[in-house]
Amino acid sequence: MTTMPLTEIHPHGYITDKDKYLQRLRRIEGQARGISRMVDEEKYCIDILTQISALTSALQAVGLGLLDDHLKHCVLDAVRMDGPDAQVKIKEASAAIARLVRS
Amino acid sequence: MTTMPLTEIHPHGYITDKDKYLQRLRRIEGQARGISRMVDEEKYCIDILTQISALTSALQAVGLGLLDDHLKHCVLDAVRMDGPDAQVKIKEASAAIARLVRS
Amino acid sequence: MTTMPLTEIHPHGYITDKDKYLQRLRRIEGQARGISRMVDEEKYCIDILTQISALTSALQAVGLGLLDDHLKHCVLDAVRMDGPDAQVKIKEASAAIARLVRS
Amino acid sequence: MTTMPLTEIHPHGYITDKDKYLQRLRRIEGQARGISRMVDEEKYCIDILTQISALTSALQAVGLGLLDDHLKHCVLDAVRMDGPDAQVKIKEASAAIARLVRS
Repeated sequence: MTTMPLTEIHPHGYITDKDKYLQRLRRIEGQARGISRMVDEEKYCIDILTQISALTSALQAVGLGLLDDHLKHCVLDAVRMDGPDAQVKIKEASAAIARLVRS
Repeated sequence: MTTMPLTEIHPHGYITDKDKYLQRLRRIEGQARGISRMVDEEKYCIDILTQISALTSALQAVGLGLLDDHLKHCVLDAVRMDGPDAQVKIKEASAAIARLVRS
Repeated sequence: MTTMPLTEIHPHGYITDKDKYLQRLRRIEGQARGISRMVDEEKYCIDILTQISALTSALQAVGLGLLDDHLKHCVLDAVRMDGPDAQVKIKEASAAIARLVRS
Repeated sequence: MTTMPLTEIHPHGYITDKDKYLQRLRRIEGQARGISRMVDEEKYCIDILTQISALTSALQAVGLGLLDDHLKHCVLDAVRMDGPDAQVKIKEASAAIARLVRS
């Protein structure tokens, strides 16, 4: 991103909140490690399932946050420039939404 | 478990496949780390979302596997002993299923 | 069900709550009709999406209720009779749970 | 929409495909009725759950289709007019996506 002109310093929507995302993702990594440890220590299945549900929800929340930022920045910018890119961006976003809903 | 001999070392259903689960969970940890790295390197949002959907699916698959093992072993054993524990185990399993479906 | 012996009057777990389920399903049918009507009257997309999410949640709740009843009755009975049927029932339940989680 | 010329007859994105949506929604209503009937006739729980999963997927597909149309038309139009409405529309769409993902 170092070659960006001064007038375009936020190529990706989430960048303003990058630290917040990194923090949440580090917590998610920790949750994943915790689940491995629970299996390794042969904890009770139901307790492991509870942690899996919690991790899934945390991941979904990050996904929804990134998607919102993406719509607010990348998609909006593409539409404003009003090229053929706008339709491509929306198609791409719709496909990503479908994957999130179905996963 | 009261009638189990001392050699009974598999209290939880998933233990026979423990290595397989640990392997899958290590891959999941790697996926989580990869997503952090993508955010850190400011990759394109849509590509990050694709990885989040893939990780969610991988987690769900592990959850469904653990649940299946739990039903096949813990719940089945509790029902066979036919004590009040059977109802408790099924109630507990249903609650875990509801969390998985809703997460 | 007409050929059932007197000692077996609840072949399917949900039957004791049949009226409650029918009532909930009638409400679900009404919700589906309402969504058709909203599209026909060209209501605002976002409002239609809200109703689709509400209907999905209502359906999931019925599915989770039926599954809980199924585990508590059909599966439990099969395990108690302790034939090969128990494994089949659990396998079947696990597959149904996976479909619910993934749908 | 106040500045729209009289020839503007498609206020909502899905309207061009209205018949296709109505057809799909009528099928969904039929599926809901079929599930009621299965419960009424005391069909096997697992078969009912299969139909519930199928109906949930059909509903999700309609929801994703409407959302895609909404982004392509309503949101895109709002962004093109470049008023404060664009942010409102995107916020609204993000909230609808979150409801779909979580339901």
